[in-house]
Amino acid sequence: MARNHIRKHIDDHAEQAVLRLQKLCRQPSVSAQGVGLRECAELVRGLMVELGLHAELVSLKEGPPVVYGELRSQSSKRTLVFYNHYDVQPPDPLELWESDPWAAEIREGRVYARGAADNKANIVSRLAAIEAFLKTRGDLPCNIKFVVEGEEETGSPHFAEYIHQERSRLKGEGAIWEFGGLDYGDIPAVTLGLKGMLYVEFCVKTLAKDSHSARAAIVENPAWRLLRALGTLRDERGRVAIEGWYDDVRGFTPEELKALEKEPLQEEQLKSDLGISQFLAGMSGLELKKALAGNPTANIAGFYSGYIGEGHKTVLPAYAKAKMDFRLVPDQDPEALASLLRNHLKQRGFGDIQLAIQSENPAARTPLNSEIARIACDTAHEVFGAEPIVHVSSAGSGPMHLFTHTLKLPTVAIGCNHPYSNTHAPNENQRIDALISGTKWIAAVMERFGGKA
Amino acid sequence: MARNHIRKHIDDHAEQAVLRLQKLCRQPSVSAQGVGLRECAELVRGLMVELGLHAELVSLKEGPPVVYGELRSQSSKRTLVFYNHYDVQPPDPLELWESDPWAAEIREGRVYARGAADNKANIVSRLAAIEAFLKTRGDLPCNIKFVVEGEEETGSPHFAEYIHQERSRLKGEGAIWEFGGLDYGDIPAVTLGLKGMLYVEFCVKTLAKDSHSARAAIVENPAWRLLRALGTLRDERGRVAIEGWYDDVRGFTPEELKALEKEPLQEEQLKSDLGISQFLAGMSGLELKKALAGNPTANIAGFYSGYIGEGHKTVLPAYAKAKMDFRLVPDQDPEALASLLRNHLKQRGFGDIQLAIQSENPAARTPLNSEIARIACDTAHEVFGAEPIVHVSSAGSGPMHLFTHTLKLPTVAIGCNHPYSNTHAPNENQRIDALISGTKWIAAVMERFGGKA
Repeated sequence: MARNHIRKHIDDHAEQAVLRLQKLCRQPSVSAQGVGLRECAELVRGLMVELGLHAELVSLKEGPPVVYGELRSQSSKRTLVFYNHYDVQPPDPLELWESDPWAAEIREGRVYARGAADNKANIVSRLAAIEAFLKTRGDLPCNIKFVVEGEEETGSPHFAEYIHQERSRLKGEGAIWEFGGLDYGDIPAVTLGLKGMLYVEFCVKTLAKDSHSARAAIVENPAWRLLRALGTLRDERGRVAIEGWYDDVRGFTPEELKALEKEPLQEEQLKSDLGISQFLAGMSGLELKKALAGNPTANIAGFYSGYIGEGHKTVLPAYAKAKMDFRLVPDQDPEALASLLRNHLKQRGFGDIQLAIQSENPAARTPLNSEIARIACDTAHEVFGAEPIVHVSSAGSGPMHLFTHTLKLPTVAIGCNHPYSNTHAPNENQRIDALISGTKWIAAVMERFGGKA
Repeated sequence: MARNHIRKHIDDHAEQAVLRLQKLCRQPSVSAQGVGLRECAELVRGLMVELGLHAELVSLKEGPPVVYGELRSQSSKRTLVFYNHYDVQPPDPLELWESDPWAAEIREGRVYARGAADNKANIVSRLAAIEAFLKTRGDLPCNIKFVVEGEEETGSPHFAEYIHQERSRLKGEGAIWEFGGLDYGDIPAVTLGLKGMLYVEFCVKTLAKDSHSARAAIVENPAWRLLRALGTLRDERGRVAIEGWYDDVRGFTPEELKALEKEPLQEEQLKSDLGISQFLAGMSGLELKKALAGNPTANIAGFYSGYIGEGHKTVLPAYAKAKMDFRLVPDQDPEALASLLRNHLKQRGFGDIQLAIQSENPAARTPLNSEIARIACDTAHEVFGAEPIVHVSSAGSGPMHLFTHTLKLPTVAIGCNHPYSNTHAPNENQRIDALISGTKWIAAVMERFGGKA
């Protein structure tokens, strides 16, 4: 009965949730461009204070503030921590949007705005769940701590500093990550992990300045040199070819493998969405799903040398540069891998290549049999009437390890997202029905989580 | 005595030559970008008409016009043909220029501008030599034909068409190529040949659009694919690794080898100028000189994929592109080599890589004992008081074969250039003293060439 009051409150206040989402979306907050971040942080803090949370902006040495909010339960000692971010991706290319990315226009049951799905709807949804408990019951089923950072979209460069600085008040028994919700076919999905990342930039400089390419007969070309060096890093099937790279890779547990087997993957649909005829190394089926969830990657995110304009120029370039993101899996240690990479280059005779480590984050993976994972799955059943899909790990990355490792918080990603929300792309949108159902899911998790005390 | 009048006129009109050079340089004429070409052609034609030459713009089916100028001698039936080009390389990277590349600023006796040395000074210099004869003597010592094309820097894609179309009026007994002048130590140099070129662009497209790099776990990255394909084209010592590539390479004659042995090459100076610690594959001495004059090359002139801006972006690029110039030597046939390249890629499993042939030119090499070569050497002695250096071949390229093969014109390259002119690079410049001495050299060649009749 109590549960029905909560759900009814959420349904009855859908309009208010949408208005809050529009308010947040109409405040641009682009971390890559440093636009509107403090203003958006203030808005988020304002929404928390309105509901009765203690909320403050925590300043860091550099970068925008983190919004911290908390509210204690009278009836439970257990604490659930929410991780969210108030920053968004740049809205470019603007010409492909059907409405202004900051207008938060509603069309056909969706709010269209940059940041609507990633990640402002999840902030609003979690606040709506909290409000439902407070308004119907006057109490929360568990303590809530809210951490909302402002640099997720630029790799959370100062978030580790925040976590280390504030770790004493971030204690809890479980956490909910920023994203998640409905998968294809509107089946709820629970994600248990994120890959880590080592982001590096290579630079080879062989000449003081660009030269006439006639000199290629007697002078080494930096593009050749970089190309040869990178060519030693990965084999044709996508496997990293650096000795020791896989030494600390933790395999899947039998339970995780079972979850992977059950995970649906619309291969033909995905191929057609991406415009490809086959997957890397011809993979399919379980192998493909294992690769997405568990394979380290070595991706060239950028390569530049010489003249890349129209027509032809015969230049011997002075330098060549490449950016690479290596996605990591448990229990790879990015610092150790950076050393392996450096040694690999040195041993192959490429010690002159400049290597700049731009960011390093370990992977995170919460066990399938952890309490928070079980609660997320059970409540998905209750709210959506369907067995949820369990993603052992997202193929993407994020600072989840700061929750799972540093704060020792078992963490799952669930929320109010939906497929075709165009995150990081033009016409990003949030389905209003998913916002509401996701809120009910979060409320159900809070209740079950607190009741365990 | 007559010779002294000519030289005096050249000295006395140095300022006018510099003004003409500035005028030409202030007209951008970037063939790679299609900028300012007709305007520059008109300027060149105007300078010719001013001196009394018959001059016209010859239109081709595509591309900018060729400027053709001629003036007959009253006293000689022999014809010397000048080859020049009015187009220039793109000025990038702009930030490394100390003055605007189109300002033609004079600093410390040099004119700084894109195209100043390559090749506008030589146009101005040859016109100044013609003017000196006409003004002091009222006649030329030989017939002059002037061919000034507008696409040399993009591989002269339509110049063969022009030569075939106009060959009947391009008859002559010898030709002077576009460049040449002073070498290191201000010793005059005569160049007898040019390498050929095959310029190609590769494109690999693996995705419909840029994607999140998390997908690198299951989708091939086009940069990896291009990097692997290019990696099969050349070995570490710079040798082209395509089967059959060297089959038609003609070796040096004993005379040519002797010239190569005598050719000075300031290795330490060159290394320090280029900012390198050693030459390709550790070459030195005769091997190095033979490489410059006679080795085919495979140069990456440009490589682009993904995100190359500041900071980090985790993108799986949709495509990767590379531009390569292959320098060719006698008697390699660019068309045959293009087929070898295509087959090589196909056989290595890279048949999907798009390969666009952007230009193809065979090499040219005029015999050391030809009349024009002997005149160029003898007059160098007269004008500079020093035995000239003979370069069997430039390391650079150009459509000289259309003169030596199609028009049967023995051709040498001499002019008013100087080392440290930064051609194809930022801060390109023309030394004014070299402009004047080079003009005297051209005048001496004209005189000797006409007198042979």
